[in-house]
Amino acid sequence: MTEFNATDHALMARALRLAERGAYTTKPNPMVGCVIAQGDRVVGEGWHVRAGEPHAEVHALQHAGAAAMGATAYVTLEPCAHHGRTPPCANALVAAGITRVVAASRDPYVQVSGEGFRKLTASGVVVDTGLMETAARELNRGFFSRIERGRPWVRLKLAMSLDGRTALASGESKWITSEAARADVQRWRARSAAILTASGTVLADNPQLTARLPDGEEAVAPLRVVLDTRGRVPTRARVFDASAPTLAVHAVDMVPDYGDDIAAYSVPRVKGRLDLGAMLAQLGQRAINEVQVEAGATLAGSLIEAGLVDELLLYIAPVILGDRGRPLLGGLDISVMSERLGLEIVDSRHVGPDLRLLLRPVRSRA
Amino acid sequence: MTEFNATDHALMARALRLAERGAYTTKPNPMVGCVIAQGDRVVGEGWHVRAGEPHAEVHALQHAGAAAMGATAYVTLEPCAHHGRTPPCANALVAAGITRVVAASRDPYVQVSGEGFRKLTASGVVVDTGLMETAARELNRGFFSRIERGRPWVRLKLAMSLDGRTALASGESKWITSEAARADVQRWRARSAAILTASGTVLADNPQLTARLPDGEEAVAPLRVVLDTRGRVPTRARVFDASAPTLAVHAVDMVPDYGDDIAAYSVPRVKGRLDLGAMLAQLGQRAINEVQVEAGATLAGSLIEAGLVDELLLYIAPVILGDRGRPLLGGLDISVMSERLGLEIVDSRHVGPDLRLLLRPVRSRA
Repeated sequence: MTEFNATDHALMARALRLAERGAYTTKPNPMVGCVIAQGDRVVGEGWHVRAGEPHAEVHALQHAGAAAMGATAYVTLEPCAHHGRTPPCANALVAAGITRVVAASRDPYVQVSGEGFRKLTASGVVVDTGLMETAARELNRGFFSRIERGRPWVRLKLAMSLDGRTALASGESKWITSEAARADVQRWRARSAAILTASGTVLADNPQLTARLPDGEEAVAPLRVVLDTRGRVPTRARVFDASAPTLAVHAVDMVPDYGDDIAAYSVPRVKGRLDLGAMLAQLGQRAINEVQVEAGATLAGSLIEAGLVDELLLYIAPVILGDRGRPLLGGLDISVMSERLGLEIVDSRHVGPDLRLLLRPVRSRA
Repeated sequence: MTEFNATDHALMARALRLAERGAYTTKPNPMVGCVIAQGDRVVGEGWHVRAGEPHAEVHALQHAGAAAMGATAYVTLEPCAHHGRTPPCANALVAAGITRVVAASRDPYVQVSGEGFRKLTASGVVVDTGLMETAARELNRGFFSRIERGRPWVRLKLAMSLDGRTALASGESKWITSEAARADVQRWRARSAAILTASGTVLADNPQLTARLPDGEEAVAPLRVVLDTRGRVPTRARVFDASAPTLAVHAVDMVPDYGDDIAAYSVPRVKGRLDLGAMLAQLGQRAINEVQVEAGATLAGSLIEAGLVDELLLYIAPVILGDRGRPLLGGLDISVMSERLGLEIVDSRHVGPDLRLLLRPVRSRA
């Protein structure tokens, strides 16, 4: 196990922060950051901005210029060794005179994993790996999920009152959470590769489901995915407008009303309902890293029941709607305590007057 | 408006922290802390420990001895001017040679408010008031509520799953929250003058409702108050055991089954149910400062509906119990958004794996 010193940690932390700047734009590529340093003096830094454009290492090397000679490069992901849309970064690092590469994580593609490191080592570059690997994997959890599990990372976004209600009995729900919370949701949408909803939500609320950021901030528009088992959502629904790409998913046995006007694919049914696992596998094949689910209690409950939710993004507004209000999750039949779903609070913070929790399922509760 | 400097603030903050040491034992008296200082050098400090025993000032003066001559005394509450169970603190401060008194808040008793300050000023002591008054009132919010509003401060303690459920459909609820959360509840009980519950909870769960602290920590036992409209709770219920005093409250038109074996008082009915406002006023007359409500969804809902809840202490366990679980609050008929109850998150923190929120009602939501 390589021993890393405080400078290594500080500079890798910097590289991770740089990587994050690409959160809204690198999809389907991973976010990557690179810092080039002579000892603890930073001489170059860069991050991957957009798929098809130069990788983080190229930006950092350009920034460093001649100062890269004899320097160390800190990268959050293994430098590429293959000729893709851009030349291999491993070659570029060697050519610039980098003598040590510190990497947080390996390339998850089985075919090429370690290839970048081998190329560097073969050229006499010292390679140290695994520094802050957990943080690096966390940053690109969608990318790693897609490559390693064959399906996107699924984030279920929910908003509720203090007493666990999403709307009044009448269905009225505008607005339970604050403007600050709703603006925060836009940022989570922007980093998602897809926003998943169901026909019920489209028919009830007719949402546009685009990522709206403040002026001057740019995002690659997430794909809107509508689960429309019977193919009945009208083509005039806002979710089908031209502001972002949309994909409908219907059951194999149905012919959608919208014919070829809307991009669509079909999946089989399981117990009469869409096979959600198959639906997600399809999204993985379409290079979708992170999916944000914004739907009603039924789809939310079904995804949880199927064990397909990787994290819950839960906004809690400090209001009480009463026990006649609509429940957070539907169709979850939990009759004994041992069947309850245990989660872990990964993050909690105040967003305006509301509270935001990020939670992930745990196997068993402590 | 007196200008206070950094030393004044630091020493008053210290006095407030000292006062808090009496949280479990001063009832029905307020918590009070006192710091005596020569400039920024602390020469004496003390706090009120227990009703009937010396006040904070007396402890601090004893600690300071001759060093009190020419010193400043920081007190969190106006020094008393009357002969109660102990001699007046104002006299003691003057006799010890204190030349300046800084007080956070006035005595809320209308009859004596300002009397301590007048006595000090008349003896040539400089009196500066209002430093950190909000914090001082917050510390003794129960005491101020009882004196100023004629009723205790009401804290509604609730525990729920992430999806707003307090139990499974079967009623099973042991344990939704963690051991750490349940130990935390004991501290809130210990600072309460009374723990309020309802017959339904007693009959279903048979709780003892005492404050259990770790070994070596002492609390004056809170009064257990059982709302028992029809006087039907059996005398063998644990809440009636000898471990702490208990009071039953029944409707005026009922004769309780337990006769004179159990201390009880009666209140009128409003719309068939116990008049909760009258019940609380009675508790205020019995010198109860803070009430912690630990009951089911029905009483919780009724207190909220009646506008009698001053704060919600809500434990959220990161588990999902499903929509068939029991709701947090009962009987709240909210049919339009404008009727929703708005609250403000005053404090949020992690307690073991759970989240604890302290919330207070707000008039209207921002």
